[in-house]
Amino acid sequence: MKLKDLGEFGLIERFSEKYFSESLSDGFLGIGDDCAVIPALGGDFLVSTDLLTENVHFIKDEIGGEMLGKKSLAVNLSDLAASGATPVASFLSIAIPPETDTEFLDLFFKGYAFWSKKFNCPLLGGDTTKSAGGLTINVTVIGKAKNKKLRSGAKPGDVICVTGFLGDSAAGLEFVIDPKKKRDKNAEYFISRHHNPEPRISEGKFLADFQSVHAMMDISDGISSDLKHIMKASEVSAVVELDKLPLSPLMTECYSLRDAYSFATSGGEDYELLLTVDSKKFAEISEKFEKKFSKPLYAIGTITEKKSTEIVFLENSFSVNGFSNGFDHFTA
Amino acid sequence: MKLKDLGEFGLIERFSEKYFSESLSDGFLGIGDDCAVIPALGGDFLVSTDLLTENVHFIKDEIGGEMLGKKSLAVNLSDLAASGATPVASFLSIAIPPETDTEFLDLFFKGYAFWSKKFNCPLLGGDTTKSAGGLTINVTVIGKAKNKKLRSGAKPGDVICVTGFLGDSAAGLEFVIDPKKKRDKNAEYFISRHHNPEPRISEGKFLADFQSVHAMMDISDGISSDLKHIMKASEVSAVVELDKLPLSPLMTECYSLRDAYSFATSGGEDYELLLTVDSKKFAEISEKFEKKFSKPLYAIGTITEKKSTEIVFLENSFSVNGFSNGFDHFTA
Repeated sequence: MKLKDLGEFGLIERFSEKYFSESLSDGFLGIGDDCAVIPALGGDFLVSTDLLTENVHFIKDEIGGEMLGKKSLAVNLSDLAASGATPVASFLSIAIPPETDTEFLDLFFKGYAFWSKKFNCPLLGGDTTKSAGGLTINVTVIGKAKNKKLRSGAKPGDVICVTGFLGDSAAGLEFVIDPKKKRDKNAEYFISRHHNPEPRISEGKFLADFQSVHAMMDISDGISSDLKHIMKASEVSAVVELDKLPLSPLMTECYSLRDAYSFATSGGEDYELLLTVDSKKFAEISEKFEKKFSKPLYAIGTITEKKSTEIVFLENSFSVNGFSNGFDHFTA
Repeated sequence: MKLKDLGEFGLIERFSEKYFSESLSDGFLGIGDDCAVIPALGGDFLVSTDLLTENVHFIKDEIGGEMLGKKSLAVNLSDLAASGATPVASFLSIAIPPETDTEFLDLFFKGYAFWSKKFNCPLLGGDTTKSAGGLTINVTVIGKAKNKKLRSGAKPGDVICVTGFLGDSAAGLEFVIDPKKKRDKNAEYFISRHHNPEPRISEGKFLADFQSVHAMMDISDGISSDLKHIMKASEVSAVVELDKLPLSPLMTECYSLRDAYSFATSGGEDYELLLTVDSKKFAEISEKFEKKFSKPLYAIGTITEKKSTEIVFLENSFSVNGFSNGFDHFTA
């Protein structure tokens, strides 16, 4: 069998069950959440790692050195945000084709240093090596949390929320992967949303302090895929109301509603937070959230008792199909 | 300027000075040692990360899935060993060409699980993605140490020691990179030493408990390169006696002394520990070491007051040249 037949999540399940199924010591948490958990006195350590490969995750000349450096750290910090953690340190490995310009690398490190400084998350180590193929980047981040949030805490009746606009990044990706696609003045906005995501560290820490926030993760593959991780980990089902998905003004201006819903559900890399909140506390938490961050906490659906492993998508209260698949690296 | 003109250590110095030179909080240690240090109550956390790329660090069909899995974790555990740490967890990122056989991956995970189980170091997370180029593997390990050792503690007068045979791995590499090189019955031994290094976790922990072990690191690029890291970090110089380098019986049987010294000094990937010990305590520590591990702690030279940045190599007490360069990924 070839890997492309097995798929990304198939691979992870296969090897984790076969070789790494022994029970972990108390307080540890392994494969299957945004971050792993290593218990320590005075608060858990949370760890996440992400691998970015040229011509799969990015097109070098399209994103440019500085945005690539920023994004490489941002997508990892987003996993810490999803757990409600405070960043502690990062580690960077890069495999570099020897012909790479040092100017490109200078810009890369400048971009990487941006989020590093912003969130006081020093680069403590890494590895640099020659690549016989393209540029490959792996970042590992370590954070600390007193009140960590996981994917597994969602309860029937919870309000499903997100922290910002969905779909812009996926719309931007269409320009990036198709060089022939005409770029009008709005294209720049979508491309920038794809290349320059902002890790929701402050939002994550704020939300993690509420006991009534039951589950949290970040949106990297699109909610139609990511919400299923919460459903599986929490043993619940979910209903999402398409007409409640937060769309940016330019998204509604430039795209049909159907395209916008498709971007917002199946497109990845929004890096907003996806969380479930006790419905009795939603009004209070969303009011405090809006006061602090000057933007709403968007309610997009409801957690239900476990029925189906598929998300029910509603449009004007009617069930609709065609929004159920997220992104899989190996079968895409 | 191209990266190949700058070199690996040039790149690291360049970006670490420019973007990451702010002072770290108390107890943290960043770029420049085998592991980074994150302080915590009840013992420091030590972190190391290594990136392995196809056709640079390994030839896929030559090493095979199982040995590649073993080695990927082993070289990282070796960094923990060098700091005297107990392994806590590992994180694995792999970029995989979609045409890869799942059988190869199964063997890879079997090999990875070998050291994971042996040293009770669970795989807690990672990332899998498609590679548009070759197979790329990044491993991050986290360990814990009460008495960590660094590269910076060496003092003039210290005995320089290593924990095992040097050069076998480099001799094995010659067969791996040259498919035309004739393989007699001894070739298998050297190739196995290259593909299947054993992390010296037990030795590292044992040695770290002695205050008189002043500095420690692992040998990944060859002592002619690695010892310079201790010299720089500790602000000392060093004399190495070639005739004291521990050579395996097959090394002395198959190679001239000159070739053996060259493999032992400039060849990398032995993954033995390199340490400096207070000369007054060397006899006691080496006796205890030999009793516990049934092998000698090999004394190979002496730390001296800072004079030159070059290592002085002696052969039968006479200074010799030609052993001063280790391996650099970008200029090689």
